Amino acid sequence: MHVRIVGCGLIGTSIGLALSRSGFRVSLSDPSPTSQAIARDMGAGEIDVTDAPEVVVVAAPPDVVVSVVRAELDRWPGAVVTDVASMKQQVLDELRSAGADLSRYVGSHPMAGRERSGAVAARADLFEGRTWVICPTQDDDPGAVAAVRTVAEATGAATTTMDAAEHDHAVAAVSHVPQIAASLVAVRLRELSDEAIGLSGQGIRDVTRIAESDPMLWTQILAGNAAAVAPVLDALLDDLGRVRQAVTDLAAGNEDGARQVLARVIADGQLGHARIPGKHGSAPTTYATLVVVVPDRPGELGRLFNDIGAAGVNMEDLRLEHGQGAPVGLAEVSVLPSVAERLRDELTAKGWSVHE
Amino acid sequence: MHVRIVGCGLIGTSIGLALSRSGFRVSLSDPSPTSQAIARDMGAGEIDVTDAPEVVVVAAPPDVVVSVVRAELDRWPGAVVTDVASMKQQVLDELRSAGADLSRYVGSHPMAGRERSGAVAARADLFEGRTWVICPTQDDDPGAVAAVRTVAEATGAATTTMDAAEHDHAVAAVSHVPQIAASLVAVRLRELSDEAIGLSGQGIRDVTRIAESDPMLWTQILAGNAAAVAPVLDALLDDLGRVRQAVTDLAAGNEDGARQVLARVIADGQLGHARIPGKHGSAPTTYATLVVVVPDRPGELGRLFNDIGAAGVNMEDLRLEHGQGAPVGLAEVSVLPSVAERLRDELTAKGWSVHE
Repeated sequence: MHVRIVGCGLIGTSIGLALSRSGFRVSLSDPSPTSQAIARDMGAGEIDVTDAPEVVVVAAPPDVVVSVVRAELDRWPGAVVTDVASMKQQVLDELRSAGADLSRYVGSHPMAGRERSGAVAARADLFEGRTWVICPTQDDDPGAVAAVRTVAEATGAATTTMDAAEHDHAVAAVSHVPQIAASLVAVRLRELSDEAIGLSGQGIRDVTRIAESDPMLWTQILAGNAAAVAPVLDALLDDLGRVRQAVTDLAAGNEDGARQVLARVIADGQLGHARIPGKHGSAPTTYATLVVVVPDRPGELGRLFNDIGAAGVNMEDLRLEHGQGAPVGLAEVSVLPSVAERLRDELTAKGWSVHE
Repeated sequence: MHVRIVGCGLIGTSIGLALSRSGFRVSLSDPSPTSQAIARDMGAGEIDVTDAPEVVVVAAPPDVVVSVVRAELDRWPGAVVTDVASMKQQVLDELRSAGADLSRYVGSHPMAGRERSGAVAARADLFEGRTWVICPTQDDDPGAVAAVRTVAEATGAATTTMDAAEHDHAVAAVSHVPQIAASLVAVRLRELSDEAIGLSGQGIRDVTRIAESDPMLWTQILAGNAAAVAPVLDALLDDLGRVRQAVTDLAAGNEDGARQVLARVIADGQLGHARIPGKHGSAPTTYATLVVVVPDRPGELGRLFNDIGAAGVNMEDLRLEHGQGAPVGLAEVSVLPSVAERLRDELTAKGWSVHE
């Protein structure tokens, strides 16, 4: 199958690398000759190809996706066209009102990305094991949907089907509003003294990690999904307003019901957090966690994981914590509960300091 | 030195374990005979001790700290008393207005904790490499401050000195408001369909990890530090209101200046995030990150870290990513930039698939 990729940024180039590795013929196009050449040199596909593709993947910036999809539908009358933008309803609406041939357009969205951008950050395995959402419409030719699914799965992604509005509301809550919250919490760090910022621990690091993301890309994503993001922000603002009122009341010595507001928010947050699926998209699993003290020098983690492997145990998750100024780190090793006790015993027998 | 610990929860018991290991004589007290016995059985110290301590560490829940500190100051007229609550100004103010002997009271706050609570979650190494803030006042006897510093450092913590108000404003921004934000983002996940929550990726996991925390404890912390938390929440609410207005405008097709509001927030968030110090409390370090594809079976991570150790390279940080439904994971290995290229070459030579 010949797949044409329009847009040689992180996502387009990664798709090209993955499809090329899977034996697809890939042609590349980007308005920037440099990006296009880098993607080709990385092995993502050929450039300057003029024969017709069977599938076109539009991986352009969100604010030009609609015009690029329209141009590709016009240029290749026999091709199926998909795009990979983070919002799906607006793209569909604009294509429909422009009179585009929707039987050959199937919107999609691979749930993958990195803090870095551009072809140079691309990886052939970017989609391996990720979810790639496909948003068919009633106008779609069934063969068109199947073709997009074939391309998505060839990158190693697992496909799932949703309608565009459902997709947009989901990503508003699990991706777009969390991005705003992370950025806003990080904004508050700008004015702190060096001493104050020095008290940062793992909590603030986790909450603000995605605040590193690209402002240009995120402005386009938030603008493109504004209709779905707005109601989630409304609810968040209401909740935050109630928390602020409760805290302000407490600061003024007025305690009536204020503590209950705070307790409810933290407790409801526990319930919401517990809904996030565990590894491999399965239902949430409660793993057992062993905490192992690891000297902070080369080879020690290797020795630890070697010992875990020798015990025949698979780590389900791992978190490393480094102390400030300390010569040790802590490895929080998550394993299936059924093997935790045996692993603790085996590691202890090999001299590791293990806590549960 | 004889240190008396009042409160055998996570923090008190961990302090007892750490001090006992360092050769201190530790006595324990808790209103719950069960907690007290568990802490003793874990090796955190003796119980039913009646002779006078030199230092008392009050590790009681935040809402009873003041009354416990007062009682301990009264009971042991020769002892220095410290507490470990997450807010310092309120405790100090209430002790002062109660006429407590402030020459022997030194507030402090070890920046350590876990999502779990209680004596059973205690660890002797909980404070190793963590910052322990000490908040002296002009009323303090210098020997009292030195005694608290000695105790804190004996747990493996690094001490730093701040005044109480400065401490409270710092933790409001780096700990208390991030907790509220994480919980509020997590609250929004409660109403999602299973399909929608299934699109959760690493971003939402990181942003909401601390939403697992205990509602009772956090209600007390937020109430106790309300005066410092309120202005940070005010600023957050203002920012969120402007973002909501921009998104609402965009959803209504009114684009005047709305994109600039969004771009500014994301860009300012990048700047705030960049201020968080790196490992070991040093100035932020930019590490080089290698991404290594790891088959999801026992021993593979061990083999990887063994190979990294054999290269003589120390991992500075590590993040594991698991794909949904995929048989591989990705290990993001952060190392000093000067060794990244050599490590990449050595791992590639050993058959690993490495990306930068």
